[in-house]
Amino acid sequence: MLRTHTCGELNISHLGETVTLCGWVQKSRDLGGTTFIDVRDRYGLTQLVFNTDSDDSLRELSRSLGREFVIRVTGKVLERTSKNAKMATGDIEIGVTEIEILNPAKIPPFMIEDETDGGEELRAKYRYLDLRRNPIRNNLMLRHKMAQEVRKYLDGRDFIEVETPVLIKSTPEGARDFVVPSRMNPGEFYALPQSPQTFKQLLMVSGFDRYFQIVKCFRDEDLRADRQPEFTQIDCEMAFITQEDILNIFEGLTHHLFKTVKGINLPAIPRMQYADAMRLYGSDKPDIRFGMEFVELNDVVKGKGFSIFDNAELVVGINAKGCADYTRKQIDELTEWLKRPQIGVTGMIYCRYNTDGTLKSSVDKFYNEDELTNWAAAFSAEPGDLILVLAGQTDKVRKQLNELRLEMGTRLGLRDKNTFAALWVLDFPLLEWDEESGRYHAMHHPFTSPKPEDIAMLDTAPGDVRANAYDLVINGTEIGGGSIRIHDRALQSLMFKHLGFSPEEAQKQFGFLMDAFEYGAPPHGGIAFGFDRLCSIFAGLDSIRDVIAFPKNNSGRDVMIDTPSTIADAQMNELKIKTVL
Amino acid sequence: MLRTHTCGELNISHLGETVTLCGWVQKSRDLGGTTFIDVRDRYGLTQLVFNTDSDDSLRELSRSLGREFVIRVTGKVLERTSKNAKMATGDIEIGVTEIEILNPAKIPPFMIEDETDGGEELRAKYRYLDLRRNPIRNNLMLRHKMAQEVRKYLDGRDFIEVETPVLIKSTPEGARDFVVPSRMNPGEFYALPQSPQTFKQLLMVSGFDRYFQIVKCFRDEDLRADRQPEFTQIDCEMAFITQEDILNIFEGLTHHLFKTVKGINLPAIPRMQYADAMRLYGSDKPDIRFGMEFVELNDVVKGKGFSIFDNAELVVGINAKGCADYTRKQIDELTEWLKRPQIGVTGMIYCRYNTDGTLKSSVDKFYNEDELTNWAAAFSAEPGDLILVLAGQTDKVRKQLNELRLEMGTRLGLRDKNTFAALWVLDFPLLEWDEESGRYHAMHHPFTSPKPEDIAMLDTAPGDVRANAYDLVINGTEIGGGSIRIHDRALQSLMFKHLGFSPEEAQKQFGFLMDAFEYGAPPHGGIAFGFDRLCSIFAGLDSIRDVIAFPKNNSGRDVMIDTPSTIADAQMNELKIKTVL
Repeated sequence: MLRTHTCGELNISHLGETVTLCGWVQKSRDLGGTTFIDVRDRYGLTQLVFNTDSDDSLRELSRSLGREFVIRVTGKVLERTSKNAKMATGDIEIGVTEIEILNPAKIPPFMIEDETDGGEELRAKYRYLDLRRNPIRNNLMLRHKMAQEVRKYLDGRDFIEVETPVLIKSTPEGARDFVVPSRMNPGEFYALPQSPQTFKQLLMVSGFDRYFQIVKCFRDEDLRADRQPEFTQIDCEMAFITQEDILNIFEGLTHHLFKTVKGINLPAIPRMQYADAMRLYGSDKPDIRFGMEFVELNDVVKGKGFSIFDNAELVVGINAKGCADYTRKQIDELTEWLKRPQIGVTGMIYCRYNTDGTLKSSVDKFYNEDELTNWAAAFSAEPGDLILVLAGQTDKVRKQLNELRLEMGTRLGLRDKNTFAALWVLDFPLLEWDEESGRYHAMHHPFTSPKPEDIAMLDTAPGDVRANAYDLVINGTEIGGGSIRIHDRALQSLMFKHLGFSPEEAQKQFGFLMDAFEYGAPPHGGIAFGFDRLCSIFAGLDSIRDVIAFPKNNSGRDVMIDTPSTIADAQMNELKIKTVL
Repeated sequence: MLRTHTCGELNISHLGETVTLCGWVQKSRDLGGTTFIDVRDRYGLTQLVFNTDSDDSLRELSRSLGREFVIRVTGKVLERTSKNAKMATGDIEIGVTEIEILNPAKIPPFMIEDETDGGEELRAKYRYLDLRRNPIRNNLMLRHKMAQEVRKYLDGRDFIEVETPVLIKSTPEGARDFVVPSRMNPGEFYALPQSPQTFKQLLMVSGFDRYFQIVKCFRDEDLRADRQPEFTQIDCEMAFITQEDILNIFEGLTHHLFKTVKGINLPAIPRMQYADAMRLYGSDKPDIRFGMEFVELNDVVKGKGFSIFDNAELVVGINAKGCADYTRKQIDELTEWLKRPQIGVTGMIYCRYNTDGTLKSSVDKFYNEDELTNWAAAFSAEPGDLILVLAGQTDKVRKQLNELRLEMGTRLGLRDKNTFAALWVLDFPLLEWDEESGRYHAMHHPFTSPKPEDIAMLDTAPGDVRANAYDLVINGTEIGGGSIRIHDRALQSLMFKHLGFSPEEAQKQFGFLMDAFEYGAPPHGGIAFGFDRLCSIFAGLDSIRDVIAFPKNNSGRDVMIDTPSTIADAQMNELKIKTVL
């Protein structure tokens, strides 16, 4: 090796040793004729010192070293006169006797510091420099540690990691596929997998029993902070199990990760019905770091002549604890925030429970103080609280109130990134109506099994059929989702029929899987975790970008390598395709 | 779980316990009124027994179970009267009290046995059934174990696994890229990576210091037994190292794998110069499980009037030990084999060293016995040996003789799959001349550094410049290859110039990397192992197909899922492409 030690390991026990270090010049300063240089590598920082004892040419060379120069230095480990208890190597410094410049560096376009002055675009272009910063490097080291612990846990429970293909078949279900033209089969295309779903099910048919894979998946969808065209899943499947077994094994994985990576003993993960999650939080991924549950008010508020409430399908509110002192201006501002097109509220009703015990609402014309006392009772409100109420069509108003609840949670400091609350959401609907295509879509995917007792409703009330499907939610983010699968050809065919496939289409697209079900398919089910999201939650980040070494921007571009880009005509000719702009 | 135990774990210590097993019916037989069924899962086989004590309906049901039915049985663990010492569960059987058919099965299209009657195509179509067979499952479990041990070894040495992107940029160097049209950037394409080469180098520039990744790579090349369009690499890179460090770390990995996976203590891996490998074996990946080294005969045979030898650039041969008794017919057959177009030999000269001490060649007209004695001496031949000699243009004749040597090694049983001989081949040429394009190509890749002492020859004798490049060869198969990289912009530019890039082209394609070299790039180097090949060698297989769960055939097709396939016009319209057939 070019070095004897790293920049993070020397301490008082090495005093007097002659060592060689390699790294980057973090900073350099002259103090009364002595030059100090901090040299940095992945493992830490070490202070180099060049003082009046040093050779003149060495001192001169030391003063020529710019930030981010790559150097190799040899010298003696000395005890510092002024120690730095915050640095692992803060007790020592190196009295340098030799320097070699391994590579000079231009002045970086932004500071390589924990808090940098570089804008997002500049840092994306020079991602290799951004990756030098501690916070980003720590995220990727966290990610590595998490992958290690996932594998350790699953390896220890007889799961086998099997690689499934990346060049697969395009299917009409789910999100948009990325496709890959085949040169050897002109006019034909591969697709990149949105998940290894059918392959992991086939592995169960093959008897692999417990499968997992940490695997890249691809979706050609419009992008946002927590979506990338390529993303990573912890993909798992088990045979001869019930839903309870899956929940237990993967609750165990979640506990293992919190314990080994964060040192946190997460409590048992509570479980909630999908229907309850929608009723109490207006979301299938409630953030239960805080309460502020929805209270439905139809019985309390209707029939008093307030037409907005009287005409609404649902009147529902939350209790913002301790917010009675919100000014009119604050409430107006909140109302404006709710009126943005993304949320689309037309108006918000409030009721202050003043600290003097009086109640004051924005609809005093229709509700007297006695009636408001009933409101307060419904919310178990106390003096000092602020009740916020929305009204409208049930699904819509729940979604809106979910936004309001999350916003109030944030404003009240109830959503601390270092607090973690996990939740299982169970019994999702099997199907959801899609207005645009005028048909039902699989809410999870077409291979999810309906609850046996609900199958009869497939014809009469398809929207009410519940699935053996479950999500793991942490801090209001969906981290994992899965289901018990169909393993019976007839039921799978029925499912495709309800999704609008003709028998021929179903056979063409998924015949291999339905055929496989006829050759001895065991009962099976599984789950997939969004590994990028899981890492970002563990790292306390809002976006998944900074747990990915080389992410793409919102246009799907990598601006560092400048891709996508045009390709040579010769390439297109070989592939028998052309672009039509 | 639907079971209390697996089919591989019950033994005499479980006698009397009531257990529930799940699995597939392997076989069923009736013996004097008693029905025996072997039930199989990933973990093993267990014998079920239904005898005259059993309930009538249960016995009837047991007789209705076909091969590959998925069943769940409950019963008591009984001691067998006739034990089977070859089976882990051979001491016991289950006296069944309950059966549930979890899924019936059609008769499989081929036998689910270690030796099956299914042809390759049929097994590919029903790959999920082929994967049930022990040999294939064992290959995939071996692969899992190998990936585990690779990670354990590298994790333990401060390597960080970092995921690099799959949607990258198409570049003109190397093999043909698979490309992916970008919907969000019409007319532009991503490419799938042939390796994460530039990304891992950027990670070194970022200071990651020790990187690895077990990663899918893609090459759109014509296929053969050891090539697939998608394949897996163990990809590694280190900074602040010399070639010696890389060789040591990865020799350590190789030893670790042989030890932990095969229980083999591999000796220290010998090292050979590329030039010597070519001279002694006619190959840059010699199989050194056996000797049979080349002996060059120019000094011995020229000038005796035999024009074929006199006109040849190189006369070179091998000594086939103990083959003096080869008949004329056998030698003719060998010559015919060499004359096939793939090898293209025009003629082979032989010299028998008979057991009686006489020497007899096919060119006695030109060489008397004294002269043949000189031949024999050159080969250190002994009575009973057969000397086989080819002549021609150096590179060509070496390649031909390599084929002959390997064939003779095989015929003589010197290439046993359970014997392992690893070899480092060092100091590859930097460049190789490509007749077709009329320019030099990078033998390894354009980022490989030339030996400093050879740089001056880039202008005068480019073909003689040696690279800091090395391959790991096991049993004549290239398993890994790598190099010390260029980390200096000027040298990288010079390299691109010699590869025929204009400065503009070089900047357009690889500007991001050359720019990165200006911001403090450390000296670095790495290696990548072909994980599929490594697994196939460990599994004793000739092809990589059966260490891959879902491989493609020679036309790049997955016949099970029927891909590649046509896609909808709507998809092509969205992507702004069309096919031109």
